[in-house]
Amino acid sequence: MIKGNVMVGQSGGPTSVINSSLAGVFKTCKDGGCAHVYGMRNGIEGLIDERYVDLSDYIKNDLDIELLKRTPSSFLGTCRYKLPSAEKSPEVYERIFSILKKLGVEYFFYIGGNDSMDTIMQLSRFAARIGSDIRFMGVPKTIDNDLDCTDHTPGYGSAAKYIGTAMKEIIRDAKTYPNDSVTIVEIMGRNAGWLAAAASLSKAEDCQGPDLIYLPERVFDHETFVKQVEEKRRESRAVIVAVSEGVKTSDGKYVCEANKKSTVTDAFGHKLLGGTALYLSDFMTESTGLKSRGIVLSTLQRCASHLVSRRDITEAYMAGADAAVAALDGETGKMIVFNRISDAPYSMVTGICDIEKIANKEKVVPDEWITPEGTGVTAAFDSYARPLIIGELSPFMVDGMPRHLFIDK
Amino acid sequence: MIKGNVMVGQSGGPTSVINSSLAGVFKTCKDGGCAHVYGMRNGIEGLIDERYVDLSDYIKNDLDIELLKRTPSSFLGTCRYKLPSAEKSPEVYERIFSILKKLGVEYFFYIGGNDSMDTIMQLSRFAARIGSDIRFMGVPKTIDNDLDCTDHTPGYGSAAKYIGTAMKEIIRDAKTYPNDSVTIVEIMGRNAGWLAAAASLSKAEDCQGPDLIYLPERVFDHETFVKQVEEKRRESRAVIVAVSEGVKTSDGKYVCEANKKSTVTDAFGHKLLGGTALYLSDFMTESTGLKSRGIVLSTLQRCASHLVSRRDITEAYMAGADAAVAALDGETGKMIVFNRISDAPYSMVTGICDIEKIANKEKVVPDEWITPEGTGVTAAFDSYARPLIIGELSPFMVDGMPRHLFIDK
Repeated sequence: MIKGNVMVGQSGGPTSVINSSLAGVFKTCKDGGCAHVYGMRNGIEGLIDERYVDLSDYIKNDLDIELLKRTPSSFLGTCRYKLPSAEKSPEVYERIFSILKKLGVEYFFYIGGNDSMDTIMQLSRFAARIGSDIRFMGVPKTIDNDLDCTDHTPGYGSAAKYIGTAMKEIIRDAKTYPNDSVTIVEIMGRNAGWLAAAASLSKAEDCQGPDLIYLPERVFDHETFVKQVEEKRRESRAVIVAVSEGVKTSDGKYVCEANKKSTVTDAFGHKLLGGTALYLSDFMTESTGLKSRGIVLSTLQRCASHLVSRRDITEAYMAGADAAVAALDGETGKMIVFNRISDAPYSMVTGICDIEKIANKEKVVPDEWITPEGTGVTAAFDSYARPLIIGELSPFMVDGMPRHLFIDK
Repeated sequence: MIKGNVMVGQSGGPTSVINSSLAGVFKTCKDGGCAHVYGMRNGIEGLIDERYVDLSDYIKNDLDIELLKRTPSSFLGTCRYKLPSAEKSPEVYERIFSILKKLGVEYFFYIGGNDSMDTIMQLSRFAARIGSDIRFMGVPKTIDNDLDCTDHTPGYGSAAKYIGTAMKEIIRDAKTYPNDSVTIVEIMGRNAGWLAAAASLSKAEDCQGPDLIYLPERVFDHETFVKQVEEKRRESRAVIVAVSEGVKTSDGKYVCEANKKSTVTDAFGHKLLGGTALYLSDFMTESTGLKSRGIVLSTLQRCASHLVSRRDITEAYMAGADAAVAALDGETGKMIVFNRISDAPYSMVTGICDIEKIANKEKVVPDEWITPEGTGVTAAFDSYARPLIIGELSPFMVDGMPRHLFIDK
């Protein structure tokens, strides 16, 4: 039985299943007897401004739970806000803890990626320092799949399923024309190629998959790129290339930087990427005269809730639910992780891991899962990723459109 | 009972439902007793090279029919080939008719848009001139919905459903951040705004829809655009703009041309468009300092068979089937059209229309369906478009991916 209230927030880039984790936290805490499950608006940044809601005002029954699971993006709103260090700005922490105290919060959950886990780390350290017994738990979320200590992250399976499906449809589209062409598809992923690698999931009995995949794990070389495309042209009229937005040349610069007047960075100092496919498409046409087009899968990779992986959405719920269970058991400063028991049949159990091991770290695609030429992934990647995209969860359709649960329209 | 064989082809830009029309032609002709339904590879261009298949080698049972309906892009391959005039190049026509004669073809079906209907017009005229009794029938197909004489075209409903759904998910994504931002979503449509207008279908009880929609039916003015976005910012942090790739400034130039080094045209003399959203996004940031991003819905608008309108796919099948029935009845030089009986409850019957009235013409969004400010569509558009996006048809999923029927992998 829960004593005290709950505060839950969502942070970082949204995903198609981040609300499923929110549903898992909410339902588990309510079923455990919690009076109030508060949701911070726009993560920790909103909480500092005392912006929060009582989730029971929005989630009134089990149908709402199901609708929330089918709602993309962060239901509570998100932020990209890095807490200042407690040494420099203790007043920020004092403010947060005073708001939590006022609301009778004993359990704090933060659903996010590696930057967000930093928030959990800082808050749990501060709690230890001031002797607060509020429990702080991290719930993993990122389509990037780049969190350490976990087999994979909630959000990755659905993004991978969307990318594989979109690639397959784009391949079908590209190959229907009789002309020679190069199609370059840009896929998200700053430093880790997990998402770009998912383009390979389009390969099956009925589809040969992309001809070339470029991951940020390998140095990108313009001349080699042209050569590799020209080689593939000997085998097929329409060459299909999947490229990570995060590919870099040997000087450490992002390929897309060549295309930009200036480079903008976000709150965490990350450069904003984009434009890789269009730049490379122009480059290909200029270098070879080949007709080329760039396609950017863009935001839909993280918000196409009309095409989610059922396994992913179920596991995302489980991550939220198990974080609640762990907090009730007294855990703090931890994150839920996924431990895989086997690929086939797929089996996974959740565990908990010390947040200090996770925050601010990035996990990349293992070197041995990338082909020697660096333009594809091996069968080991397929065995790893394929189970994560299995199954669908149909949206609730109203008047021909998916229906969502919402605070703001 | 059919005497003689059938030749069917697909032409122009593919859609998510063009294969449903192919299925309608095939099954109706086979059920009518036709020995061979041949499919030209890459449309009339492939036929001239004697590239064709016997469709029974690929469609072997009713499950294959269902799989074909769920396969995006043109199963037979497509082309963008304009027949030369029969006066200038009679040898091209003689070649086509000799190939058809050799194969015992009595019925010829061409599934395509307004450019493709030109092919049917030329061939049926030539048949009349030489006294051939081969029947030539057009089956409408275009996501652009710009064919004359028909209430709407097969392909539009599914593209509209995809656009509405993607818009809704993008809106959800954009509004989750606490920052001011402008999101500009580029939608297909050269001269007609039917697809861009479909962005409005995202509006519902749970979503306010895009703030501004710019159609090619109205002149685009950069200064007015900035003013209108700034006005919308007073109402909401995240402003969402849908813009047709075909918007033009008062000098008659496409907005996206400002961004290009050179302009490429296709076989029909159409300028290749693209880059409108990215250009306008940069323009917005430079003009106002506002954070802005451009999203291009791109190819998936016409090939996202994982999210089709069930009504559209059923009607596309019907268009193919009814073209077959009309040809058996002796019709030639005609196209199947859709006549709407009522919006609610929706009711539609097919008809036939003389191809001369249709070929090379474009139907745009009626002026009275566009709001006075030119930044949205009226309720009349919703009444028109909403019935066309109703219902879903689930893909056949294998190993987490939609399965397709194929000739070429």
